[in-house]
Amino acid sequence: MKTLISQGLRFDGSRLLVLDQTRLPHEEIWIVCESPDHMVHIIQHLQVRGAPLIGISAALSLAHFVEQGATHEQIMLAAQKLKTARPTAVNLAYCINTQLEAYGSDHNQQKIIETAQALFETDIELSEAMSNFGAELIQNGENILTHCNTGCLVTTGIGTALGVVYKAHEQGKNIHVYVDETRPLLQGARLTTWELTRANIPHTLICDNMAASLMKAGKIQRVLVGADRIAANGDTANKIGTYNLAVLAYYHQIPFHIVAPETTIDMSCATGDDIVIELRKADEVRGTAATPTSPVYNPAFDVTPAKLITSHITNKRQKCPEGYRQQIQ
Amino acid sequence: MKTLISQGLRFDGSRLLVLDQTRLPHEEIWIVCESPDHMVHIIQHLQVRGAPLIGISAALSLAHFVEQGATHEQIMLAAQKLKTARPTAVNLAYCINTQLEAYGSDHNQQKIIETAQALFETDIELSEAMSNFGAELIQNGENILTHCNTGCLVTTGIGTALGVVYKAHEQGKNIHVYVDETRPLLQGARLTTWELTRANIPHTLICDNMAASLMKAGKIQRVLVGADRIAANGDTANKIGTYNLAVLAYYHQIPFHIVAPETTIDMSCATGDDIVIELRKADEVRGTAATPTSPVYNPAFDVTPAKLITSHITNKRQKCPEGYRQQIQ
Repeated sequence: MKTLISQGLRFDGSRLLVLDQTRLPHEEIWIVCESPDHMVHIIQHLQVRGAPLIGISAALSLAHFVEQGATHEQIMLAAQKLKTARPTAVNLAYCINTQLEAYGSDHNQQKIIETAQALFETDIELSEAMSNFGAELIQNGENILTHCNTGCLVTTGIGTALGVVYKAHEQGKNIHVYVDETRPLLQGARLTTWELTRANIPHTLICDNMAASLMKAGKIQRVLVGADRIAANGDTANKIGTYNLAVLAYYHQIPFHIVAPETTIDMSCATGDDIVIELRKADEVRGTAATPTSPVYNPAFDVTPAKLITSHITNKRQKCPEGYRQQIQ
Repeated sequence: MKTLISQGLRFDGSRLLVLDQTRLPHEEIWIVCESPDHMVHIIQHLQVRGAPLIGISAALSLAHFVEQGATHEQIMLAAQKLKTARPTAVNLAYCINTQLEAYGSDHNQQKIIETAQALFETDIELSEAMSNFGAELIQNGENILTHCNTGCLVTTGIGTALGVVYKAHEQGKNIHVYVDETRPLLQGARLTTWELTRANIPHTLICDNMAASLMKAGKIQRVLVGADRIAANGDTANKIGTYNLAVLAYYHQIPFHIVAPETTIDMSCATGDDIVIELRKADEVRGTAATPTSPVYNPAFDVTPAKLITSHITNKRQKCPEGYRQQIQ
């Protein structure tokens, strides 16, 4: 496999390297991924995260496994484990299935490697395309609210929702970003602030429960978020708290956009009801603060119905789901 | 001053004692309050918190200062400092002003002490009255969502919103409470879970951004929260995130009630626009996780307009503000 370099994932010619996102923003530590089993662990422990990047990380891991001399049986077993490392994002299955299709009935191992490289490189272009489409919408002076982390740590390019922010900033638009801290794992507080600080983009960190009062005060002009899986009807699964923002944006008549590549659309899911939501451990919510014996509900994602989404901004175009939110741009 | 005992505030005959709420749920440590200046520090650092209890704590502190031999000038200066220790809750000013009125132009110091005792004891009755009114609404089998902490740590009685929960549970109703963790200071995760665990009331801790998905799934039948100040028109200031819940409850057609004593109503505020919102330090939001240089917006409260409130449950009656939410009970 050739050398591949992105902000959060690298292949240096012999080693597959993952930036440990659980250590940011304080430490930049790269993990050497030894095997597909190791990658499953890395994905499940959120050391790499973000729908597009976990798919590509899994694909690179399978490709590197081929280079290390894996047999057909080992490849198929690893593919199955990687595909199911986390349930909600479509990208894991999409990337691994794409590799397996290329591998085909003739078991052409080189195709697994070539497909991984292509997925890595295509993802840069997807980021660029959707960021360009999205940036067309952004007006000078806008305050944009975003949730979770959707920038150069979740794609091999500049990102999805945060990619739009990067592009608008690059175009010289004077924008300011409100960053939802995104409980329980604080991807906004830890990662989005880290990215925006590096890019010198003005931003303000808030707790997730503060967005409503900012909207009421007229301080937010647009909401941009990513997606983990988009159903055929436009219903969209994304980080827990996204549906919360969609309702608030609707009530305050603020445009609410999903930014994601077309590959995030899963036509096998008719509606959001078909999307499996990952439930994670209680201690992620409890931390060291809460009463240790209290039960916890900790879904990693929620589903926003299409009718609350102003548009899906993809690498191909801006798509408007059916519904009243079409009126708001 | 006579001996006064509540869950979070005590006078033992010679010492004024405050349960340090910043150390809960892990440690139960009582602070000996030495002076009104010390009480201002305790209030500002949230070692005692909750609108009713900070008022009564301030009143006891002023009364104890009188017992310690304070002069007229010292009393007036201490009263001014205590009243303005925090800006949003009406209770600080209400309690101290009640003492000063009784003190009167004849500077009757004994009245300051008697008023403090009366405020402490009356607060127990207020809790009881509003909890009874509120519990009438609660149906068997309800899942109740609450925010912040509003129980026996914020009044000298059983509480405001959580008082209603205690009362419904005591009446044998089978209820379950969803506890918003309440960022940034986690009063729900730390204090409400502590109270509900001690009372053996079934509950589940969630992050603030999870409430919307629970509402969509039909898992919440009612929202109960407290109040820091209620304007003449019914607009209500309460812990940041309350307005967020009010919008969500409205969208999902779930009853949304404020539970607070009549003394929380400030007729000098015509609407919520007149309520001063306390802004607190960035580090409360950043903690150790976030990028240390990123700017932060950290309002301690937000204002919910009366039109989103199904009713105000007070110690006198259930009050319905004008607006479409009157239809939902």
